[in-house]
Amino acid sequence: MTGETATFAPADPDWEAHVRASFARQGAMALIGAAIERLAPGACVIVAPYRPELSQQHGFFHAGITSAIADSAGGYAALTLFPPASDVLTVEFKINLIAPAHGDALRARGEVVRSGRTLTICRVDVEAVRDGAAATCAVMQQTLMRVASR
Amino acid sequence: MTGETATFAPADPDWEAHVRASFARQGAMALIGAAIERLAPGACVIVAPYRPELSQQHGFFHAGITSAIADSAGGYAALTLFPPASDVLTVEFKINLIAPAHGDALRARGEVVRSGRTLTICRVDVEAVRDGAAATCAVMQQTLMRVASR
Amino acid sequence: MTGETATFAPADPDWEAHVRASFARQGAMALIGAAIERLAPGACVIVAPYRPELSQQHGFFHAGITSAIADSAGGYAALTLFPPASDVLTVEFKINLIAPAHGDALRARGEVVRSGRTLTICRVDVEAVRDGAAATCAVMQQTLMRVASR
Amino acid sequence: MTGETATFAPADPDWEAHVRASFARQGAMALIGAAIERLAPGACVIVAPYRPELSQQHGFFHAGITSAIADSAGGYAALTLFPPASDVLTVEFKINLIAPAHGDALRARGEVVRSGRTLTICRVDVEAVRDGAAATCAVMQQTLMRVASR
Repeated sequence: MTGETATFAPADPDWEAHVRASFARQGAMALIGAAIERLAPGACVIVAPYRPELSQQHGFFHAGITSAIADSAGGYAALTLFPPASDVLTVEFKINLIAPAHGDALRARGEVVRSGRTLTICRVDVEAVRDGAAATCAVMQQTLMRVASR
Repeated sequence: MTGETATFAPADPDWEAHVRASFARQGAMALIGAAIERLAPGACVIVAPYRPELSQQHGFFHAGITSAIADSAGGYAALTLFPPASDVLTVEFKINLIAPAHGDALRARGEVVRSGRTLTICRVDVEAVRDGAAATCAVMQQTLMRVASR
Repeated sequence: MTGETATFAPADPDWEAHVRASFARQGAMALIGAAIERLAPGACVIVAPYRPELSQQHGFFHAGITSAIADSAGGYAALTLFPPASDVLTVEFKINLIAPAHGDALRARGEVVRSGRTLTICRVDVEAVRDGAAATCAVMQQTLMRVASR
Repeated sequence: MTGETATFAPADPDWEAHVRASFARQGAMALIGAAIERLAPGACVIVAPYRPELSQQHGFFHAGITSAIADSAGGYAALTLFPPASDVLTVEFKINLIAPAHGDALRARGEVVRSGRTLTICRVDVEAVRDGAAATCAVMQQTLMRVASR
């Protein structure tokens, strides 16, 4: 929908290094085994391979793990557009788990819908990848806040 | 608000064993190091001690980890009221991160607001516990679905 | 995102008449002055012209009015795909007001993301139309439930 | 939950007159026939009597009308705590419709959960009042933003 046609220009020439350095500081992404697959202005794709340690009671990815990956994908999509010396905080998000997260990997695609001075709105789609085929398993709508770097 | 005054009667005499067995099958809760602190009909409290592996880029609990614990607290609060041979799935949730999740532990308090035949609505408060004092760091509103056990 | 590429086949040959009859029974849509602009399987577009009676304190469309139109657009997008003798109820929705709803009219575009047996998930974009130009002012993510007709 | 025990001190000595003046400028509240029933620092209760013009297809209150009243209740609860020369905008909200809004009137009780410098988080409960008895029909979680008055 909205995010599809938007084109964004980064405000920080070092946006990519800045995003990757912030991601590297997230212990939770390392614990989950998630990695950035793609970065572009206004977009971030994060992938995590399946492990039983990421499961809910049926052996699929836990909704909280799905949310963690999606939250980071949206958050870093937002950060790509921030001016230098900025950091990103999640204000809130809402996620629908629309199909079992049953797969060899999860891929979360975050896209900026609107980048404002203080608040940024993202949409994130999460797909479960299974034997090479991807099926959307969750959709998120998220609000992020720009803050000065610590 | 709503959840405060509600009183609920469990429909499954083995509700507590059923909830604890389901929790034990969640690899993600073990990975996070979360444990059930309290169970009652319509309520579930989950606690997780801090580790750097659960952090976002500032060293606080990651929003996704906060969400994972809160999602399980609400989900198991719902499951306490289900009839035998039922399981619980998260349909969706919305979480506001209202303060930095900065503490020695996170405690998520899930409460059923309404338990319907198919859908259950919960509210979850998450507090960061630091030097013995607790401060609310996140609030969640969540929709869950009852399904027949596999 | 997800909704873009989905194609849906209606399950009720009279889906269009059924949707229009249900819409006509909504007193709130008449009060607001909203009309269906476009219907297709899995999609519904609703438009409402501006009147001061629809305003918030700055004279723009009230967030609640924006929500009412968006809720109906998503709900009727869902209903297009239901089998005969079904009705639709909103389980919940989440809406971000991303820009002032300042315009001559509001247009809400509802699209089904996933149509399940019991639950349907929609995304809705709302645009404010002003002097012929449209700008997205709100985005919604919504869960709907199929129930037997009364 | 959280909102219950919080006590708030207003930052604007004229907070009550300011809130009532803003409410009076909302054409949508007049169209709906809604009125402020109670105001206190951090809290606002809004009531609207039933009319067929506020209905969805079954004759109950439309989800959008319920949302409009709840959104204003939360928004004005937030505004009670703002410093002088401030105004309030809704960033986003999420509402669960947990029971049919079937009654002679709707009453929305908005309460501030956290009042920050820029963002305020509220929870709102909506009850349907029928023959003198009130039943919760919707619960909302909402994010609001403080802006300088125009």
